[in-house]
Amino acid sequence: MIGIFDSGYGGLTVLRHVRSRLPERSTCYLGDSGRTPYGGRDVHTILDFAEQAVERLFDEGCRVVVVACHTVSCVGLRHLQQRYCGPHSARRVLGVAIPGAEIATRVSRGRIGLLATEATVSSGTYDVEVAKLGDHQVVGRAAPVLPPIVEEGWEDTALAREALRTYLADLPDIDTLLLGCTHFPLLKPALDDVVPAGVTVVDPAPFVAERLEDWLTRHPEFDTLDAAPVHRVLCTGDPVRFARHGARFLGHPLPEVETIGEINGRLAPRNPSDRPVGQVVRSD
Amino acid sequence: MIGIFDSGYGGLTVLRHVRSRLPERSTCYLGDSGRTPYGGRDVHTILDFAEQAVERLFDEGCRVVVVACHTVSCVGLRHLQQRYCGPHSARRVLGVAIPGAEIATRVSRGRIGLLATEATVSSGTYDVEVAKLGDHQVVGRAAPVLPPIVEEGWEDTALAREALRTYLADLPDIDTLLLGCTHFPLLKPALDDVVPAGVTVVDPAPFVAERLEDWLTRHPEFDTLDAAPVHRVLCTGDPVRFARHGARFLGHPLPEVETIGEINGRLAPRNPSDRPVGQVVRSD
Repeated sequence: MIGIFDSGYGGLTVLRHVRSRLPERSTCYLGDSGRTPYGGRDVHTILDFAEQAVERLFDEGCRVVVVACHTVSCVGLRHLQQRYCGPHSARRVLGVAIPGAEIATRVSRGRIGLLATEATVSSGTYDVEVAKLGDHQVVGRAAPVLPPIVEEGWEDTALAREALRTYLADLPDIDTLLLGCTHFPLLKPALDDVVPAGVTVVDPAPFVAERLEDWLTRHPEFDTLDAAPVHRVLCTGDPVRFARHGARFLGHPLPEVETIGEINGRLAPRNPSDRPVGQVVRSD
Repeated sequence: MIGIFDSGYGGLTVLRHVRSRLPERSTCYLGDSGRTPYGGRDVHTILDFAEQAVERLFDEGCRVVVVACHTVSCVGLRHLQQRYCGPHSARRVLGVAIPGAEIATRVSRGRIGLLATEATVSSGTYDVEVAKLGDHQVVGRAAPVLPPIVEEGWEDTALAREALRTYLADLPDIDTLLLGCTHFPLLKPALDDVVPAGVTVVDPAPFVAERLEDWLTRHPEFDTLDAAPVHRVLCTGDPVRFARHGARFLGHPLPEVETIGEINGRLAPRNPSDRPVGQVVRSD
């Protein structure tokens, strides 16, 4: 079973391509929607949350976990790999920043604009990964207004175009625009209208799925084909809301969304009816 | 020393009114900017963070803490009060939801629109508090796009007006618009342009300061006048960014911003140069 982890709904755009390219693999998606967004957060908080998510996916039986979230891939991937994937470990954690840098440098003639979260841009990880591949320049712009626009379902409105125009004005002279956040592929119709001629928009998700397929071919010990693959979705927030919004990201309806929550520092199954309303008083 | 706690910069709009009304009191502001926004988060996470913040302010010498954040006031105030403010405790925690409900019902002729975070709206706390005061109706709309618009400094743009117009279309027939998030007072110029005639916009912050003054008069054992009041600001995120953005919320420059971070489940002082960049690997 392949695990896919994201801070919320966005990674479902990656799951979509993984399922389409690898239809005989079971998948388990974990969306930390109860604690999203990660992008403006402290690095140590991001690492805590990422450890909990990856451990939950291992507990569900995943041996390979793809961190679909650019924020986590940019600040915490190496930490997750060192913590869980020693040379004799039967588990692997893969990210999206290296495939993202690869596809962007392959497409770009020299100047790559990166639209992402504050944490992704300020990590400098894309600059580092692109520099390993060529002489391309990376210009980053944090775009914190875009994820909530997409979550509201406003991705194809005048407002989304106006926000994109404002952000793009801060990325002059680019020839390639790398979508460094899993929410942004939904902005494609708006981007088509506002991106200047000659700029290529790159969504790394299809390439992430392609690189995952390569990787599984090279590491058959981590691969399992299922005659009847199972697809599960776990989330930390409201499962009804997750299913409703998530379908837009995945491109078709979600399986029944299972609820998990933090209990004693770990993400464990939780009854959705435990979700409290109004003033909450707890004893511990 | 009066403590003021918010999930980020927004509560500085409350601090502004508290300092103006109570110039002889020292203040300590704690903005949890490293973990903001709280609004889309799980209730138990919000409670964890609120406990840490309030305990830090108590440790700094505050005996009265005002929870300026509507999200925390709506879901966690009673918890904080029960946990920290028993009948013999020398500490008190006050919120903004009751003053907010009071001023809104005083202004409204019957139908109050509430613009706030998802957690504030879905808590139903404003409905409960308003129902205690009269027959007014509350119609809520979560507005997750607005806080990042304000944090980008775009509060007086066509984009802000378009977002407000879209949200207001979901609040028909209101006569009063209650700003149920501390970011929203900065949208005043845009609101003046788009709010329909006959709708009064209410920012509860000045009234929160007025009710705090009343409360201190009635509880002199919690009050201290300082000949030379001290004003401190603590934040969990990037202190440079906090100072730069914060000045717009406070209306004047901030004192030197001190950095705190979560260490073993508590918010403790932290050296800002400890803030990591790039891939972070930690051992613990």
